[in-house]
Amino acid sequence: MTILLYDLVGRDAARPFSPHCWKVAMALAHKGLDYRAVPTRFLEVPGIEGGVSTTIPVIRDGDKVVSDSFAIALYLEETYPDRPTLFGGKGGQAHARFIERWSQLTIHPYLGVTALGALHGMQDDANAGYFRSSREARYGKALEEVTAGREAGLSSFRAALEPLRSMLSYQRWIGGDGPLFADYIVFGAFQWVRVATAFQSIDANDPIAEWFGRCLDLHAGLGRSVPAAA
Amino acid sequence: MTILLYDLVGRDAARPFSPHCWKVAMALAHKGLDYRAVPTRFLEVPGIEGGVSTTIPVIRDGDKVVSDSFAIALYLEETYPDRPTLFGGKGGQAHARFIERWSQLTIHPYLGVTALGALHGMQDDANAGYFRSSREARYGKALEEVTAGREAGLSSFRAALEPLRSMLSYQRWIGGDGPLFADYIVFGAFQWVRVATAFQSIDANDPIAEWFGRCLDLHAGLGRSVPAAA
Repeated sequence: MTILLYDLVGRDAARPFSPHCWKVAMALAHKGLDYRAVPTRFLEVPGIEGGVSTTIPVIRDGDKVVSDSFAIALYLEETYPDRPTLFGGKGGQAHARFIERWSQLTIHPYLGVTALGALHGMQDDANAGYFRSSREARYGKALEEVTAGREAGLSSFRAALEPLRSMLSYQRWIGGDGPLFADYIVFGAFQWVRVATAFQSIDANDPIAEWFGRCLDLHAGLGRSVPAAA
Repeated sequence: MTILLYDLVGRDAARPFSPHCWKVAMALAHKGLDYRAVPTRFLEVPGIEGGVSTTIPVIRDGDKVVSDSFAIALYLEETYPDRPTLFGGKGGQAHARFIERWSQLTIHPYLGVTALGALHGMQDDANAGYFRSSREARYGKALEEVTAGREAGLSSFRAALEPLRSMLSYQRWIGGDGPLFADYIVFGAFQWVRVATAFQSIDANDPIAEWFGRCLDLHAGLGRSVPAAA
């Protein structure tokens, strides 16, 4: 049965942008599972599947509804053990949680800053109002002021990526010889920004950019199915 | 046959301090392998096992000599597959490399600064001279000046540990339900400092301090076999 993925979009239903939804899209493709994305705006999230979650991704797989990208990956691994693994064993599953926390706390804050204004511009009027008020409350200033700080933070952001960059001198993927869910965790963050804005958070010659390009090529170019923001 | 671990010490052979040697000691204990530490000073390193490595740890296991802590862990995992796993599968092995790079690039530089003066004080005269000249060349200033900067860097160091701290709200070990080599990677860094100096790089109430305490309790309290520096 086709799995439903409630996927965050703005005005254009063909440009899903959520980093966490991208993690799940890549995980579903990795498992070779048939799925259908259900384009969902911010204001529609509380109504999906009877209000099961305040955030997406949410998936429906037959009778089962699961929210939270990491929980979804664990569910897929457990439910479809004969498909390609997302974790490469129990150790990989445990260590992926560390990488998820690293990505969320080291990569997301800066990338969010770079994309914030553009993400606002992708919303329809009603959702743009929600986005502005919720994000301005979170950051304590106007969206435009937040994004204006991105140049100043760029070099320290790039320095903070050094563990990932250095790791890529040992192996091609966070998963080793091939990608695992931990790659999709970090991929989702960079894809979020690629879909939203032309701002280059990493230099084109950075090994991380090369790894990101490899991620975009995976699963018949799933990540490239949405063109980069111009 | 008893495995030999060439283990870095200073004047007191009973106070091994190298973070990388501690990773291996914990890995050997985790595997339940019989080993004997060979106390080794900095200036003795180039002479061990026919000059196989410029750094230690080095182990000898029968006819096999292996250097580099990560390579040793991989060797032990491959050679003793029926003993408790250090990686929990191929995914854990790959992700452990990311955690090793994170530990080396995020934790080690600051902890090295905090311990540098004390590590110098632990060496005999000949080794103290080597330590001072090699480290002053690396840092470009006097050891005492390097360590004097530790108070200024403390709060940003503690903030940089947030991915580890946050992960500990999900699971008790980097390895999940139990420790894996990735735990020993990070443990080694904090043990290095515990053996060298009484300086408290983490607050006693920090979940990371609690995790470190659990690490010290492992393998019949192997880490506590060396008392903390006074």
